[in-house]
Amino acid sequence: MDKKSKIINLDSGAGTRLLPESLEAMLPYLTGEKYFNPSAPYIQALDVQRDYEDAKNCLAHTIGARGDNLVITSSATEANNLAFTAINNLTDAEVLISPFEHPSIREIPVKNKKIIKADLNGIINLQDLKNQITPNTALISVGIVASDLGTIQPLSEIAEIVREERQNRLKNNNPMPILLHSDASQGFEVLEVNVARFGVDLMTLNSGKMHGPKGVGALFVKPASGIKLSPLVFGGGQEKGLKSGTENVAGAIGFANSAEYLARHRKKHFKNITTFKTNLKNNLKEAFGDKISFVGSEKKQLVNFLPVVFKGYDAERLIFTLENHGVLASTGSACAANKGQKSESLQAIGLTDKEINGSLRLSFSFENTPDQIPQVIEAFKQAVVDSNKN
Amino acid sequence: MDKKSKIINLDSGAGTRLLPESLEAMLPYLTGEKYFNPSAPYIQALDVQRDYEDAKNCLAHTIGARGDNLVITSSATEANNLAFTAINNLTDAEVLISPFEHPSIREIPVKNKKIIKADLNGIINLQDLKNQITPNTALISVGIVASDLGTIQPLSEIAEIVREERQNRLKNNNPMPILLHSDASQGFEVLEVNVARFGVDLMTLNSGKMHGPKGVGALFVKPASGIKLSPLVFGGGQEKGLKSGTENVAGAIGFANSAEYLARHRKKHFKNITTFKTNLKNNLKEAFGDKISFVGSEKKQLVNFLPVVFKGYDAERLIFTLENHGVLASTGSACAANKGQKSESLQAIGLTDKEINGSLRLSFSFENTPDQIPQVIEAFKQAVVDSNKN
Repeated sequence: MDKKSKIINLDSGAGTRLLPESLEAMLPYLTGEKYFNPSAPYIQALDVQRDYEDAKNCLAHTIGARGDNLVITSSATEANNLAFTAINNLTDAEVLISPFEHPSIREIPVKNKKIIKADLNGIINLQDLKNQITPNTALISVGIVASDLGTIQPLSEIAEIVREERQNRLKNNNPMPILLHSDASQGFEVLEVNVARFGVDLMTLNSGKMHGPKGVGALFVKPASGIKLSPLVFGGGQEKGLKSGTENVAGAIGFANSAEYLARHRKKHFKNITTFKTNLKNNLKEAFGDKISFVGSEKKQLVNFLPVVFKGYDAERLIFTLENHGVLASTGSACAANKGQKSESLQAIGLTDKEINGSLRLSFSFENTPDQIPQVIEAFKQAVVDSNKN
Repeated sequence: MDKKSKIINLDSGAGTRLLPESLEAMLPYLTGEKYFNPSAPYIQALDVQRDYEDAKNCLAHTIGARGDNLVITSSATEANNLAFTAINNLTDAEVLISPFEHPSIREIPVKNKKIIKADLNGIINLQDLKNQITPNTALISVGIVASDLGTIQPLSEIAEIVREERQNRLKNNNPMPILLHSDASQGFEVLEVNVARFGVDLMTLNSGKMHGPKGVGALFVKPASGIKLSPLVFGGGQEKGLKSGTENVAGAIGFANSAEYLARHRKKHFKNITTFKTNLKNNLKEAFGDKISFVGSEKKQLVNFLPVVFKGYDAERLIFTLENHGVLASTGSACAANKGQKSESLQAIGLTDKEINGSLRLSFSFENTPDQIPQVIEAFKQAVVDSNKN
C-alpha cells in the first residue's frame, strides 16, 4: 500500500471500530477498580452488577425496551441461535426465513425450515410469506435489512401478518405460538431500531457492527410473550439461566455506550452518510458509466449500503488492487465471502453468476467523510485498469 | 468503607484484574487500526487473522500445546460445555466428575453422571475412581484444583488410570472412548499447567481468572485423539465450526498476553504469594487462635488459596465488615455463593453445616503484597468484634 494513503473502510458491514469513548467507559472494568466478578458477595462486586444492569438498561432503551428484556450474549451469532431455541420444545414446529439471512440463521439445524421468496429489489414477498404460513409455523426470522444488499425489510407488515395468524389460531384453538425474530446486526447506525414499531418478539443486536467491542451481542425477548428459550450452555445461571458464565461486564458497558452514542447521533450520521453515499455514487457513475450498475431497491436501501456490480470484472481482483490503495471493500457478508460461497442474497434477487462475480458490497459508517472520495475513486480506477491488464 | 484504606482483593479466585500491558496489546484491535473482521477478504483483515492465530499459538505454548489445538470460547463455562459435547453421539456414555467441580460442569445435563468420592483433605479418591469406571465411562472431568479449597488434584495419576482403561478396551474390543477433561480455571498463576504432564485430552482455560479480559475462555483439544466435539452455536464456521461468530480478536490477544506474562513470572509470583500466604496465615493464627481452622490438604493446596473456618461465626456477616474495611473475601465460588447454595465441595470433605457457615475462601494473586497484611488483620479483628456484638 502507498504509505501516504490512509485506510478507508468501505466494509463497515463486516465490522466497525470501537468508539474511543466506549473504551474509556470500559477501562474501570478491565484494568481499573471495577474488575470484580459481579456475582461475588461484597458490595464492590454488587456495584459492578448494578453498573452491568444499568448498561443493559441503557442498551435496551436505544431499541425501546427495558434491560431485563435483554440477554447479553457473546455474539450476534449466539443471540440468533438462542432465539431459535424458542421452538426447541414445540413438536412439528416450522420456521420461515428470508433468503437474505446470515449463516448464523441459515446454518441453525432446524427440521422444517423454508425460505420466503423475495422480489428482484431484495424485499421479501409478503404474499409468499402469507402463503407459506401453516398452522405449525412457529418462528419467522427476517433480518431488518438484507445483509448483502442493505435492503430494508417490511418488518411492521410482517408483524401484522403474524398478529393476524395469532388471532386465527386463537379462534381455531391452535396452541402453536408464532413468533417474529429479526437479526438487527446491520442498520442500527442509520435506522431507528424500535422493537414496538417493528413488532418483533425477538431481536438480535451486534456490538461489533455498532462501534462497540467484538465478542458481545444481545437478544431482545419480548416480555409477557410466553416465549420459552433454552440455554445453549449451562453453569452458574447468569442472565436468568440463558447465558451462564461470568458476565462480560466491560463488553456490555462498551456495547451500551456505543449504542447510546449511535442513537443520539443518528440523525446527524444519517445526513452525513447520505451525502457521502450520493457523492460516491455520482463519482462512480461519472468514472465508470455503464461498466457498473447498482443493485437492490434504491428507495428501500439502507443509506450506508451500496451494492455495486462491475460488469465483466472479477470482484476479488478489484478488492486486491483496492486494498493496495488503502480502500477496503468486500463481496458480501464476511462469513460467507470468506468461504468462497456465492452470495445467496444476490442469487435470490436474480443476478447472473457473472454479475455476482463482479459484485462488491460497499458499506459505510460515520467514519466515512467526503474528503475520502478522491482516494476511493482513484483506487477504483486503478483497480479497473489492473483488471484489464490481465 | 474508610476512604483512606485501599481495596485489598482476597478473592482472586472469582476474578482478576486485566494486566495493563495486555490492555495495551488489545488496543489496536479495539480503537486502533486493526479492528477489522478477520474473515474479511482484504490483506488488512488477513493480518488481523494472522495476529489472532499468533495469539492462539502464544496462549497454547503456555500449556505445552499448539494454537490449532485450542478453541477460543466466550468463557470457561462455554469451554466446559463444549468439552462435554464429546459424548453427544456416544450411546449410553457415562461421565464421572469430582465433587469439587464448578456449576458449569455440574449443571450440564448428562444422563449418566456420577460423582467420584474424595477424602477429607479434598483430594479425589483414586480407588473410588477406578471402582466407578465401567465399560461405558466415556468422560472423566476433574478440575486441576478443587475450586472452593484450592486442593491440587492428582491429574497425572488419573490420566494413568485412563490409559490403563483404554488398553483394556482395546483388548476387549470395546469401542467406547474414554477421555480426561480438566477445568484449569484456577491455579494457572502459581502452578505449571501442561497438557502432556497432566495427561489430559481436553482442558479449559479461563482468561478472567488469569489477569486476562473477561468474556474469553479456551478449550484445549488433544490432536489426533479422535475427539469429536459438536458446536453449541451454528453460523459462519469460525474456530473450525466449533465457535461460530466473529472472533473476539482483542479478547484473545489480551488473554494470550496475560497467560504468557503469568507463565513467565510464575516462579517469582509463586515465591511472593507463598510469603504472603505464610505471613497472613501466621497473623490470622496469632490473632484468632483456635477460633479459626484451616481446611483442605496443607501439602497439596494451591499456594494462592487459603480456605479458613471461623468457628461459630457467620461468614456472610464477616464479609460485610471486611468489605467495609476494603478487604474482599468470599464464601466460595462466586457462581454458587451468589445463589445461597451450600458449598458442595465443603460438604464433600465432611465439614458440618456450622463449619460451612463460617467458611471463607481466601484466594490471592500477584497483586497481594505483605504490606497489605496489617489492614487485612485489622479488618478481620473488626469483623469478629462486629459479629460478636449481634
